[in-house]
Amino acid sequence: MAAAPTAALESLVLVHNVAKRHNVGTLARSATAFGVSEIVLVGRRDFNAFGSHGSTSHLRFRHFFSLSQARLYLKEERDCDICGVEITDGAISVTQHPFKKSTAFLLGNEGTGLSEKECEICDFFIYIPQYGGGTASLNVTVAASIALHHFGVWAGFPERSREGNKFTVAEKPLKQVRRNYCADSIESVIEERKSRKEIAACDIFEGNGTNDLQATNLLEALFDG
Amino acid sequence: MAAAPTAALESLVLVHNVAKRHNVGTLARSATAFGVSEIVLVGRRDFNAFGSHGSTSHLRFRHFFSLSQARLYLKEERDCDICGVEITDGAISVTQHPFKKSTAFLLGNEGTGLSEKECEICDFFIYIPQYGGGTASLNVTVAASIALHHFGVWAGFPERSREGNKFTVAEKPLKQVRRNYCADSIESVIEERKSRKEIAACDIFEGNGTNDLQATNLLEALFDG
Repeated sequence: MAAAPTAALESLVLVHNVAKRHNVGTLARSATAFGVSEIVLVGRRDFNAFGSHGSTSHLRFRHFFSLSQARLYLKEERDCDICGVEITDGAISVTQHPFKKSTAFLLGNEGTGLSEKECEICDFFIYIPQYGGGTASLNVTVAASIALHHFGVWAGFPERSREGNKFTVAEKPLKQVRRNYCADSIESVIEERKSRKEIAACDIFEGNGTNDLQATNLLEALFDG
Repeated sequence: MAAAPTAALESLVLVHNVAKRHNVGTLARSATAFGVSEIVLVGRRDFNAFGSHGSTSHLRFRHFFSLSQARLYLKEERDCDICGVEITDGAISVTQHPFKKSTAFLLGNEGTGLSEKECEICDFFIYIPQYGGGTASLNVTVAASIALHHFGVWAGFPERSREGNKFTVAEKPLKQVRRNYCADSIESVIEERKSRKEIAACDIFEGNGTNDLQATNLLEALFDG
């Protein structure tokens, strides 16, 4: 358990083809509670925000079509470690805080855990210790939440102020539906970025809102879920 | 943060009129993963096991109609502290492990938190630190899971063995539907126990299965959910 470095640290969440659509919503709620900078979706883009309690509007989302693109972005643009949350042979208990710098947490599919391809992009693995014999694995949001909670403790994230018995909720950004998604078509962004540095990224929460169909569908799923 | 005593420690979960029925199922899955001995339901008895991944069959459930009955049971028969998971003025961060002995965790309703009556039966309060401004509160199962995880760390619960990338799941008890519910009618159990020590308790996972309608409906909800 090393002391956290003094440089600004951030946590991210990496979601690859999540099996249950509504899981992204509850995951987003935990992510924002634990100070996550960004949720990086890889593969399928359709999800809804059920369970997010509006917290998706406070989060940045980014999308890549492949794991290798996501890894390149996380390594080159964010200088992150990628931490798989999975019970592998070398996995370290999350209670030991085996973190070194900003970290993106990759979550396994609930049924099958992390695939071989998913494991390949990870720098290290953590697991959540279990004590009882009644279940083989935790709900993915629960596992992610415990990992993000411990990362925040390790990184020394300042605690959110409170109002009475609740943590203070920040003001929602205005005009989010018009502003917060990718300006260009997904394909043109991919081509443009590919040519620049082989990274296909699309920050759907930046831009000024032309009517790309795919982005619009995503937004509808995001805010109407 | 005191060292855990050497006597056998246990954690319990206390659920009072949980707002969303399916929350008990996902809560049960976390509870069994973190070695919880018993889930104590207070008030409404109807819930289903959606999200439990079969883990309800490994858990003991107990039911009381009132908070004061539940408190009496937890104090006199289990020698537990009752810990409210809520952001109150005197609440201590869960990361400080402010535990002394076996503990029952009382969870607030997601919308409104713990009520005044719920707070009255608590010996102390913990909260989960939050770092981001996007949400006022965590999902109830997420909050409970983090509390139970930390209690297990503090209590030194032995880690479950693993098979490959999963924690080992114990064999399901045989004939659970016939065996695992209360033998007598709810009302006669209440009267009998009331007369004995003013506690109305009904362990639905002990007994030999006469056809009490209420118990049957509960079981259907439990296993078919």
